[in-house]
Amino acid sequence: MTGSVADSVDTVLVQAASGDYPVFVGTGALDRITDYLEAHAPAHSYAIVSDHHVAPLHGARVLDACRSAGLRAGLYTFPAGEASKTRKSWSILTDELLDEGCGRDSCVVAVGGGVTGDLAGFVAATFLRGVSLVQVPTSYLAMIDASVGGKTGVDVRAGKNLVGAFHAPRCVVADPDVLGTLPDEERGPGLVEAFKHGAILDEAYFDSLRADTAALLAADGTAAIRAVRRSVEIKADVVSRDEREGGLRQILNFGHTLGHALEAASGFALGHGAAVAEGMMLEADIGERLGVTEQGTRERLGEALGGLGLDTSAIQALDAQTVVGYLAADKKARAGRPRFVLLQGLGAVDGDGGWSREVPEDLVADVLAERVSGSQKPVGR
Amino acid sequence: MTGSVADSVDTVLVQAASGDYPVFVGTGALDRITDYLEAHAPAHSYAIVSDHHVAPLHGARVLDACRSAGLRAGLYTFPAGEASKTRKSWSILTDELLDEGCGRDSCVVAVGGGVTGDLAGFVAATFLRGVSLVQVPTSYLAMIDASVGGKTGVDVRAGKNLVGAFHAPRCVVADPDVLGTLPDEERGPGLVEAFKHGAILDEAYFDSLRADTAALLAADGTAAIRAVRRSVEIKADVVSRDEREGGLRQILNFGHTLGHALEAASGFALGHGAAVAEGMMLEADIGERLGVTEQGTRERLGEALGGLGLDTSAIQALDAQTVVGYLAADKKARAGRPRFVLLQGLGAVDGDGGWSREVPEDLVADVLAERVSGSQKPVGR
Repeated sequence: MTGSVADSVDTVLVQAASGDYPVFVGTGALDRITDYLEAHAPAHSYAIVSDHHVAPLHGARVLDACRSAGLRAGLYTFPAGEASKTRKSWSILTDELLDEGCGRDSCVVAVGGGVTGDLAGFVAATFLRGVSLVQVPTSYLAMIDASVGGKTGVDVRAGKNLVGAFHAPRCVVADPDVLGTLPDEERGPGLVEAFKHGAILDEAYFDSLRADTAALLAADGTAAIRAVRRSVEIKADVVSRDEREGGLRQILNFGHTLGHALEAASGFALGHGAAVAEGMMLEADIGERLGVTEQGTRERLGEALGGLGLDTSAIQALDAQTVVGYLAADKKARAGRPRFVLLQGLGAVDGDGGWSREVPEDLVADVLAERVSGSQKPVGR
Repeated sequence: MTGSVADSVDTVLVQAASGDYPVFVGTGALDRITDYLEAHAPAHSYAIVSDHHVAPLHGARVLDACRSAGLRAGLYTFPAGEASKTRKSWSILTDELLDEGCGRDSCVVAVGGGVTGDLAGFVAATFLRGVSLVQVPTSYLAMIDASVGGKTGVDVRAGKNLVGAFHAPRCVVADPDVLGTLPDEERGPGLVEAFKHGAILDEAYFDSLRADTAALLAADGTAAIRAVRRSVEIKADVVSRDEREGGLRQILNFGHTLGHALEAASGFALGHGAAVAEGMMLEADIGERLGVTEQGTRERLGEALGGLGLDTSAIQALDAQTVVGYLAADKKARAGRPRFVLLQGLGAVDGDGGWSREVPEDLVADVLAERVSGSQKPVGR
């Protein structure tokens, strides 16, 4: 880490229907957590929620900071992993907060990765019909993407994130310094959303991510701060313009229509990051074949995402028709038909038809069949 | 029913943060349900939610109306009663909607009493992070109170309505004609909230309810329409001025701080209507002793509410300290201390201290002790 970035915290403002909120990005941000809590989320007590991995690393630190500052606080934990993002975990956490006497003047502080932010966020959204929420993301995925935008929720039998609520945080505290504790294998998948931000809105950012890939995978301070800050700016800009996904926000779903279907069809053997990476390439392929997306886009995406070392082996076992079947269940489908976000080229989305469109099912099946049968070059091989 | 009111539907507008919505009040409103759905909640499919009692009476009628109008619709049912207002019922209904392929372009239509409105409303609030909702109340309680204002939720171990969300309906369709199917024993309790509306804001309305009590208990058309319309106007006015209960909306909690505690302390042997009626009288008593509430208010409340034939027998078995213990768990408590709405007199709330205030615990215990020991005249005896 260079001296020039140490203890330099930037503020990115997100405009939400329920009020604007700041995202504090920078090294040293976590040292100021109680200042942010007192200024942006004053509460009678703070319920810090972390999973069993992150609780001893960062949850306990936030708890200690609260107590040192004279704030009432408690730490609530749950088993790490996507398998905990359920209505059952949500019920247990809710009951624990009630048992501890948390009232309407409480604030939920989510300290962790994407699962923690979604799960604790849904607790906050529904606790006594809604209490305040602060997001303290500790993974690339959560910093770059999940902590900004107000989406909360849990997975159910029928699919991921199918139950939830929009519940904007009072503030987000993103300190890239904590990324050093993130397991190596979670860094690559977490960075996929950053490449997506570049792909949809900022070609120069896309190129810089590609150049910085090795440093980002090592959680190097300077590169990490630059990426988190730029991704937060892009995400904040999009959700400020369309919080509820009626219009522009749909562009954030680039790669996700097929990504979610691949992930579900594999029984989640294919991780979210790898599935979205594959989804971006497949959707670029679809766009190129339709003449909407600049030729060569899929190839550039493949070269860049290949550097992340994603494990995409589970995709080989899938068959195209099964994946197509999952597309109809996508929660962004309209009248049962899936919608796709198509690029014009790297850095620009095609806006015809309102940011997303239907695509001939045959074409989707063809593109899928080439990939799942292994006849195209897989990511990173 | 007189000819002059038949097929006369009034519209009361509620202003909500998420957009204004109309409440249609009048005989014949239910005959026009599909007009209202198409105009105010256009959707790919309608998920009609009713309990096992109401489904054959009114749920099926709405389903048939939808199908006759060419709208896709399904009927989803659950066992009648407060015991169904749980996270489990919410999970089951949610999964059923997902299994039927309901997407983000679905609309939940709650056809029933307060439990149905709260439960189906919470399904709508959280289904795919929120889909549209239409309330079709079929009980006095739901028409007069629960269907307007956007509160949804379920009960948990620690208390009633402790998990939920604010989710405004697209419209409310209140047809007093259906009240004839409401069991006799639910009419009196359902009218308690109407008397509360009079007590806090409209003395003349309070007096008219007292004069019309026999007709209201018989679900007489003219009296019922008048009461439902005036209560909806009052509730709509209050929630339009303060949707999230930060200020003025607190006045709707008159009688509820002690009412909820009595209900919980009795293990819900004391019904909600009877508990709120007792709560209003006790809180009037507290106000009189503090010199805030006009002398004689408690007596006038007792005379009026006595006409409803409420079953308050379960109150005799309570002891004051147990009830006081439940007060601290009230979800509107701040820093663990309960807040009370006090009347100036019938038709006016005391606004000092921001519509609610703390009250000396000793005074609350004294007032309670006199009632639960049976030394004061109970309601309706």
